[in-house]
Amino acid sequence: MIERVVKEIADEMRQRPDRGEVASYIPELARVDPGAFGLAVIDAEGNVAAAGDADVPFSIQSISKVFTLTLALGKAGDRLWRRVGREPSGSAFNSIVQLEHERGIPRNPFINAGAIAVTDLILSGHQPREALGEILRFMQFLSDDANITIDRAVAASEQRTGFRNAALANYMKSFGVLENPVEFTLGVYFHHCAIAMTCKQLAMAGRFLAHSGINPATGALVVHPDRAKRINAVMLTCGHYDGSGEFAYRVGLPGKSGVGGGILAIAPGKASIAVWSPGLDAAGNSHLGRVALEALTKRLGWSIFGV
Amino acid sequence: MIERVVKEIADEMRQRPDRGEVASYIPELARVDPGAFGLAVIDAEGNVAAAGDADVPFSIQSISKVFTLTLALGKAGDRLWRRVGREPSGSAFNSIVQLEHERGIPRNPFINAGAIAVTDLILSGHQPREALGEILRFMQFLSDDANITIDRAVAASEQRTGFRNAALANYMKSFGVLENPVEFTLGVYFHHCAIAMTCKQLAMAGRFLAHSGINPATGALVVHPDRAKRINAVMLTCGHYDGSGEFAYRVGLPGKSGVGGGILAIAPGKASIAVWSPGLDAAGNSHLGRVALEALTKRLGWSIFGV
Amino acid sequence: MIERVVKEIADEMRQRPDRGEVASYIPELARVDPGAFGLAVIDAEGNVAAAGDADVPFSIQSISKVFTLTLALGKAGDRLWRRVGREPSGSAFNSIVQLEHERGIPRNPFINAGAIAVTDLILSGHQPREALGEILRFMQFLSDDANITIDRAVAASEQRTGFRNAALANYMKSFGVLENPVEFTLGVYFHHCAIAMTCKQLAMAGRFLAHSGINPATGALVVHPDRAKRINAVMLTCGHYDGSGEFAYRVGLPGKSGVGGGILAIAPGKASIAVWSPGLDAAGNSHLGRVALEALTKRLGWSIFGV
Amino acid sequence: MIERVVKEIADEMRQRPDRGEVASYIPELARVDPGAFGLAVIDAEGNVAAAGDADVPFSIQSISKVFTLTLALGKAGDRLWRRVGREPSGSAFNSIVQLEHERGIPRNPFINAGAIAVTDLILSGHQPREALGEILRFMQFLSDDANITIDRAVAASEQRTGFRNAALANYMKSFGVLENPVEFTLGVYFHHCAIAMTCKQLAMAGRFLAHSGINPATGALVVHPDRAKRINAVMLTCGHYDGSGEFAYRVGLPGKSGVGGGILAIAPGKASIAVWSPGLDAAGNSHLGRVALEALTKRLGWSIFGV
Repeated sequence: MIERVVKEIADEMRQRPDRGEVASYIPELARVDPGAFGLAVIDAEGNVAAAGDADVPFSIQSISKVFTLTLALGKAGDRLWRRVGREPSGSAFNSIVQLEHERGIPRNPFINAGAIAVTDLILSGHQPREALGEILRFMQFLSDDANITIDRAVAASEQRTGFRNAALANYMKSFGVLENPVEFTLGVYFHHCAIAMTCKQLAMAGRFLAHSGINPATGALVVHPDRAKRINAVMLTCGHYDGSGEFAYRVGLPGKSGVGGGILAIAPGKASIAVWSPGLDAAGNSHLGRVALEALTKRLGWSIFGV
Repeated sequence: MIERVVKEIADEMRQRPDRGEVASYIPELARVDPGAFGLAVIDAEGNVAAAGDADVPFSIQSISKVFTLTLALGKAGDRLWRRVGREPSGSAFNSIVQLEHERGIPRNPFINAGAIAVTDLILSGHQPREALGEILRFMQFLSDDANITIDRAVAASEQRTGFRNAALANYMKSFGVLENPVEFTLGVYFHHCAIAMTCKQLAMAGRFLAHSGINPATGALVVHPDRAKRINAVMLTCGHYDGSGEFAYRVGLPGKSGVGGGILAIAPGKASIAVWSPGLDAAGNSHLGRVALEALTKRLGWSIFGV
Repeated sequence: MIERVVKEIADEMRQRPDRGEVASYIPELARVDPGAFGLAVIDAEGNVAAAGDADVPFSIQSISKVFTLTLALGKAGDRLWRRVGREPSGSAFNSIVQLEHERGIPRNPFINAGAIAVTDLILSGHQPREALGEILRFMQFLSDDANITIDRAVAASEQRTGFRNAALANYMKSFGVLENPVEFTLGVYFHHCAIAMTCKQLAMAGRFLAHSGINPATGALVVHPDRAKRINAVMLTCGHYDGSGEFAYRVGLPGKSGVGGGILAIAPGKASIAVWSPGLDAAGNSHLGRVALEALTKRLGWSIFGV
Repeated sequence: MIERVVKEIADEMRQRPDRGEVASYIPELARVDPGAFGLAVIDAEGNVAAAGDADVPFSIQSISKVFTLTLALGKAGDRLWRRVGREPSGSAFNSIVQLEHERGIPRNPFINAGAIAVTDLILSGHQPREALGEILRFMQFLSDDANITIDRAVAASEQRTGFRNAALANYMKSFGVLENPVEFTLGVYFHHCAIAMTCKQLAMAGRFLAHSGINPATGALVVHPDRAKRINAVMLTCGHYDGSGEFAYRVGLPGKSGVGGGILAIAPGKASIAVWSPGLDAAGNSHLGRVALEALTKRLGWSIFGV
């Protein structure tokens, strides 16, 4: 049943003319084929249903923020919430206005400013290289796959052009919200955003969120069940920037998007889902990714808001 | 089991010294006993578990916005979304800043401006008295109880002092977002916010949201299952103003609060829940109401974000 | 010399094709002939140089705010500044954002919110009719002309459509910045904005600001010399909404514009100047009015910033 | 007469207990003696009246922005205004909110963002060292004094801690408003803010603004008379950040303040004035500097808004 629905949706998506706009502000990402589409679903039993370009690596970008949040909570626990809030922002992913009104404390860990603050916390007391290594090993551990790597060209492209993120980081630094040198924190941030993964790898990495903090494939307890629920809650309210309400309304699952066109979505107790389509909508989220997930949850009755 | 947990929680809440602050900006509400606490849970089978002041009527205030949204969607369908968005606002319940930046279109139907726009839509083509009658009858129908009434003293109190809402309404009117005379729309709005209900009545009225649009008590199909899910989604992302992220994080259920101290929460497929404690937190939501719901969902494993 | 320059400029303005846009948000004002142009200059000796439609009455609109400020300072003295600031706003004439950020205190007496607060202060303890009578008599006294009247059709037009001003007034009322019933204050405000005057009358009314608080024509001491300077200072920094910097840069005189297309400008020690051309620029100020004043101050060397 | 008033005021200021707060955000500036006070006035004939610490060099900080604006206008002419506006900002000197709302274009050349944009324009096509040399030589030329230097310790202190300015610069860079590498532009900016001058030197440097663009001491034509007037106009509307209205209201002269506690004020046709007192008010302007200038213009009748 899941497999059939996954195939159907991949076929439907392939034929749609509306594909959104590929992110152009990171030059390296602008080269991606806008026609690409991948979908992978891993259910509670570990069955993998995949279709389209589910084995093609793409730049996970902001989806990495789910995993850096998980890692930082493991290190700092609830102290993390002194440096970053957990409310929807009501503004664009890279807005700086909110920071001025709230004295440098980002609204949530999934907007850029918040994710930079989380990265700074992971970095504390380490060299950038070490922190980045830790994040990458964590991704490999979660997805049970040692082949996951960072796309250095994408990272370099962001580092050359990421002035808006540099503005956010310097702004927080001026309020003492960042501890490390701005260029160190940004370096780690740009690199973990440049991790490349396939839909299958990403769906595997998200399984612990669907199953009370445990990855059923490895049996590894990643986080306490309560923490898994809470990360899902933050994904639902904040995971799609200023399109989070829309995603909840249409898809009805916790999810996190990246400007590379990927979305990770979690159906608690049921499945971990990764979709990839590079074209974005006005809020910076994958257009067909969202459309595909809407069809998926509807056909499978997976919305957390009712059957 | 549910009954035991409900009693436990009511007992615990009674003993807590931290009760928040009773809303003072509506003079009539400021008179309520801050020590009141009521809780009612109606499960899928219709069993009612209640404790404390679950039979004492209180002013439902903004909780009425869930029902006016439901009613307006029934009348206007998706046209409604041309006049109001469905994204979290990132600001206070009565903020006007967002309206200026977005040309008079409120961010969602649960902040004051959005609810006023929804009320205006219900009013269209009717006299205020008729529209108000329709809303009240809808509440009586949903809760299967003809005794629900409007507290005229509360409505009058708001009408005398509701300058901030008058500012919001006039502001939207200046952008053509409201169709009716401002004083008509505000009159209906103030009156439906002044509906008085008990926790038991409110939990009954919310059952259709927990059960795919049908109230199991009466068998009435209130809305299509898809719409029930979507209303739940909007409740989750926007139901607690600028504390919506916090409520999702701690409670993990769609919910809507009112400054009267009530909260309606929905556990899809499982139960409809109403709680009442008049003291509010800084974001304007019932402090102990939220604490009680957090305990309830934890003990019963009802979070929509995982067990 | 002055007379020749005035004629020249009126001739030049008559031929210019760029006339701006007549204000359309007050329906009654939209009917005015966009080709109208009037200019009147009264020098220190009382010589009147006038050209074009200098004897045609027009709606002075926000220019009235100079005179209500003068009147209110006479009543309340520096207490006035507790209710309204004297800093440029950095935003549009009818913006409400600033009010939210600064708890209902308008930035200056020349944006709409500030002028409404000033009107409320004049009204205090009086009936609207009395307050309005006082304002009108003050205008007649200043211009030494009993024939100045209020255009009731314009006032009624604003009262029917002035929702944005109603929003500002209700908003301030919610913070306790207004003392009187909102509809009383707005009624007086709309009516004093609807005062109709000719360029000659207006230039006469402004003479006390050019001559240390005394109207040389009548010898009447209107305000203390210090106060005259200070009102000029507020005109310079705040008199043209978000185009105040531009007006200072190009014209170099204290001035106050109205959406009726009039501008009153003061050359301290030298002259009082009134110009009228109904077409407005993007900031809501008379386009040709500003152009004419720029030419005038340049040719006569009247800028306060140097010869 | 001028000399007597200058002495009187210096004496009065020395005795006042209210001295404001010395800027602490630049560590090096925090070491300055809060009791210092200097005042120098150079009239049209070149008479110098000075009192107090008028020969003690201090960090001119933002006062340098008047001179970089002058220099940049000389290079780019009115093209400069494509990159920076000339309206008061209505917000703090280091606010970033406005930049987001207006797509990276600073409101005026005297807030930090605007001055950074102006510096970037001076830098274009040059090495930072060359650009800085040009600015310094311009200051020496204007004040006819080759001994003016940059305080390297202050520049280094700002460079280490100037995260807020780095945020502004990166933000503008992200919108393409800056042409040069951010660190180059900031380097030049921090260094020209760190120029140290005495009140006498500063008053000399400002003389061209008081006398139609010519420094009467040297006969050098610095700028066209029209440009001198216009720079004065921008100083009046924007020279004191969010205290510009207050300065115009109380002092009535074009002026520019710096967080080092200096103010340069211009009485067109009459005098160039420099005052220094390190303690600042809430808006970041020299407290006693403003008080002294208010007394000075009042006693000498120098306000541009009337005698």
